Amino acid sequence: MNEVFKKESIMEGDHLLIVLDNKRTYLVTVKRGEKFHTHKGFIRFDDVLEKHYGETVLSNLGVSFFLLKPSIYDYLSKSLRITQIIYLKDVALITAFSGIGPGSRVIEAGTGSGALTSVLAHYIRPSGKIYSYDVKPEFQEKALKNLVRAGVADFIELKVGDAVEGFSERDVDAVILDLATPWLVVPRAYDALRGGGSFVSFSPTIEQVVKTVKALEDDVFIDVETIECISRRFKVKEGETRPETLMIGHTGYITHARKVFKE
Amino acid sequence: MNEVFKKESIMEGDHLLIVLDNKRTYLVTVKRGEKFHTHKGFIRFDDVLEKHYGETVLSNLGVSFFLLKPSIYDYLSKSLRITQIIYLKDVALITAFSGIGPGSRVIEAGTGSGALTSVLAHYIRPSGKIYSYDVKPEFQEKALKNLVRAGVADFIELKVGDAVEGFSERDVDAVILDLATPWLVVPRAYDALRGGGSFVSFSPTIEQVVKTVKALEDDVFIDVETIECISRRFKVKEGETRPETLMIGHTGYITHARKVFKE
Amino acid sequence: MNEVFKKESIMEGDHLLIVLDNKRTYLVTVKRGEKFHTHKGFIRFDDVLEKHYGETVLSNLGVSFFLLKPSIYDYLSKSLRITQIIYLKDVALITAFSGIGPGSRVIEAGTGSGALTSVLAHYIRPSGKIYSYDVKPEFQEKALKNLVRAGVADFIELKVGDAVEGFSERDVDAVILDLATPWLVVPRAYDALRGGGSFVSFSPTIEQVVKTVKALEDDVFIDVETIECISRRFKVKEGETRPETLMIGHTGYITHARKVFKE
Amino acid sequence: MNEVFKKESIMEGDHLLIVLDNKRTYLVTVKRGEKFHTHKGFIRFDDVLEKHYGETVLSNLGVSFFLLKPSIYDYLSKSLRITQIIYLKDVALITAFSGIGPGSRVIEAGTGSGALTSVLAHYIRPSGKIYSYDVKPEFQEKALKNLVRAGVADFIELKVGDAVEGFSERDVDAVILDLATPWLVVPRAYDALRGGGSFVSFSPTIEQVVKTVKALEDDVFIDVETIECISRRFKVKEGETRPETLMIGHTGYITHARKVFKE
Repeated sequence: MNEVFKKESIMEGDHLLIVLDNKRTYLVTVKRGEKFHTHKGFIRFDDVLEKHYGETVLSNLGVSFFLLKPSIYDYLSKSLRITQIIYLKDVALITAFSGIGPGSRVIEAGTGSGALTSVLAHYIRPSGKIYSYDVKPEFQEKALKNLVRAGVADFIELKVGDAVEGFSERDVDAVILDLATPWLVVPRAYDALRGGGSFVSFSPTIEQVVKTVKALEDDVFIDVETIECISRRFKVKEGETRPETLMIGHTGYITHARKVFKE
Repeated sequence: MNEVFKKESIMEGDHLLIVLDNKRTYLVTVKRGEKFHTHKGFIRFDDVLEKHYGETVLSNLGVSFFLLKPSIYDYLSKSLRITQIIYLKDVALITAFSGIGPGSRVIEAGTGSGALTSVLAHYIRPSGKIYSYDVKPEFQEKALKNLVRAGVADFIELKVGDAVEGFSERDVDAVILDLATPWLVVPRAYDALRGGGSFVSFSPTIEQVVKTVKALEDDVFIDVETIECISRRFKVKEGETRPETLMIGHTGYITHARKVFKE
Repeated sequence: MNEVFKKESIMEGDHLLIVLDNKRTYLVTVKRGEKFHTHKGFIRFDDVLEKHYGETVLSNLGVSFFLLKPSIYDYLSKSLRITQIIYLKDVALITAFSGIGPGSRVIEAGTGSGALTSVLAHYIRPSGKIYSYDVKPEFQEKALKNLVRAGVADFIELKVGDAVEGFSERDVDAVILDLATPWLVVPRAYDALRGGGSFVSFSPTIEQVVKTVKALEDDVFIDVETIECISRRFKVKEGETRPETLMIGHTGYITHARKVFKE
Repeated sequence: MNEVFKKESIMEGDHLLIVLDNKRTYLVTVKRGEKFHTHKGFIRFDDVLEKHYGETVLSNLGVSFFLLKPSIYDYLSKSLRITQIIYLKDVALITAFSGIGPGSRVIEAGTGSGALTSVLAHYIRPSGKIYSYDVKPEFQEKALKNLVRAGVADFIELKVGDAVEGFSERDVDAVILDLATPWLVVPRAYDALRGGGSFVSFSPTIEQVVKTVKALEDDVFIDVETIECISRRFKVKEGETRPETLMIGHTGYITHARKVFKE
């Protein structure tokens, strides 16, 4: 029965991650009869259609490229073009602290590039829903393209609106904030959350964190915690092993808490 | 319609997280007519059954406890009793690097306490499967209790066996290793993975990492990367804001890669 | 001529660091005819007086102890009993940022336990001077004992006084602050410094840093920089090499700057 | 008497640090009648000679530059042109772990650019000595220029030689290594050190550390410790305070130990 899965074929219309090396990857849609141009020559999609995921294809210049099925994090890294960047480590931790999973109902604000949105949607499939708010409709138009491409648009409701003015959903499992003034949204998050539901906020500056934690204490949240996750990449090779010289020293702080009812 | 969800009632047989403060939390099963004893007095479950999640209950000594629905990470922290500890941040990153989601088929070795297993199972529900290997049947007996309690046992197949000798599954989406000699398992992981599937290994020592990365390069994996995630907790209070004095300085290194086919 | 130095003998009245292991070290004064008691038996100083630095002595229970000449950092770690702790890494960086060396004239506030004072004095010998201010005379009495023991008291002038009210010295090479409200002392530091002289402040909280940096900008300082130094200890052993699990996650932030003259 | 020091005048032949901003600083020698060219116009040294340290001078284009007396660390950052870079934090910690001060006799290998050498010499003045070994005479020629410029050449003896073959000095207070194979030099360092003297080694890779620590244990050293110091710079401004995005993630590991005599 495992044979059914074996060497999955690449099909017309598939999203495909074409990989030259760690730094040069391309996220494309397979279109019969067309070509994809790289600076190492072009790749004919007709050649690709005879291949399986994990195999390689040659460009017309004889350069070899790997053919991969994109993961949700490949979509993430490809959609990080607009607004502030959230890194994989932060997305992973925000997801974990939110406690969500298949079936969860989640409010996110703001939508931004849809990068975080698409990962959240990936995890709440197939029965959950992401309600993603942004004040700027033009952001959401761009985000929508990313979400459609990542195949998760059906699990997301994009809503134009200012989180400071409140959310229309109630009893959601989590409210996730990546916006400039999270402390102003805390009371609105409280209104929208179910008892025990998770509040998670991502902020680059410490002043945002101080104001947000202060607001959380005022509104009967428990388990309030702020962490910073520092990710170091390593060069690993016998005799040369060491952390990389240059690193991203800071992206942001993550604050999370849980709603309880006032006595 | 949101009213359906509103103030979800606590029911007989529910798992319940009873919270006194950040450090004193209890994961229990609600049993009509019985009591739960704490060092701040006992709580009658009959009192609990009149409550909703997020509300509080008083012990017989008048001390107030919060009543929460446990998240998958609450189960995680409660099952971290056996073998080596994997922290939330590592679990979150392992999950992210594995690229899994609802429907994924995943091999994990070793099972250990079932802590990581339960989180992986949480995310692949309802249509995926975790095949979790451990050489020690007695570990898996204990792990099973944790998995049943976390409500994810249906999505997991516990298998007694040595990962070094290979896996019986093929074309899985990810192989996740948390064991002493991951480098010896790399060829077995290769056999079991689908093209493009993810290899993820968690190791406390740098020597394990060096050997594993060496083994990965020999077996046609791409996107090989090793990172260490350092998590810092903050004390956040106006005028006193600072990272906490004591921190966990190291848990382990995470190495991940993707399988491709040899030419 | 090197023979003169060889195997330096331990003499009556010397300060001696007696070392059992990394965690159990004792800083004592050698006194003919007396004993030093440890929980591994007692050591006769008469036995010690036949030895050279670097050699071992046996206690009456046959346990071996190393006999070392204390370095300035041994005095540092032994005098860290009172007030807030400054760690070796912070002392080293404060010294470096201050730009001091033999001959420098330096203001320090507050004196605290004299730990930082003694290291600063060590480096400005024999022709420099440390002016060390503290509001609490009782602190300085205790600090004096540490400074005398470390053999640096001649290079230090202890002054009782509130740094907020100003210093009586002028044209000093550096002003080094380890006190609760450094921002209030910035104008006083300006008055006391020579042109180009160094301001260095050590503070545990980020709010102290923000206020201090704001004050520095108002008073014509250049090269204003704030850093945090995180020190990780490693377990180094073939096959087991890794950062230690527990670490000191935070001691404080160091802010430094240089005085220039207003136009 | 303080008046003597007040507003120290800039003199013909002085080394002068000309500062435009944090990133554009110039280390020059003051020469009457000459000009110093910058991309913001030229500065006449005759104008400078009427100034005091800490004051400003205008270029012919009306741009203002600060005039500072260089600290030893200014020389350090200006001489970091050749071979591997040692950062201020590492230089500060190496100095601290070595336990040196005025009067110390120290072996250093290799000389490299003379950056570390000059700082060590700064601290052992006026009565100590640095014996600095390098296999490459051409490195030492370049280093000598840096050492002369920093005003510390009198306190240093440059020696051409391979540290692996041993040192001619005996009973030195510290041996400081910044070279590719420190573990091969450990027995030579032992021979050269006094009892209780300090061994300090700086290495970028973990494999160097593992071999060095192994060699240290074989040769009766105590207090063996390896640390890594991670330095983070902060952006400090009310409402925008955060660690900087890009940081130097790794320079090297520092291993230190103390010589004792074999029984």
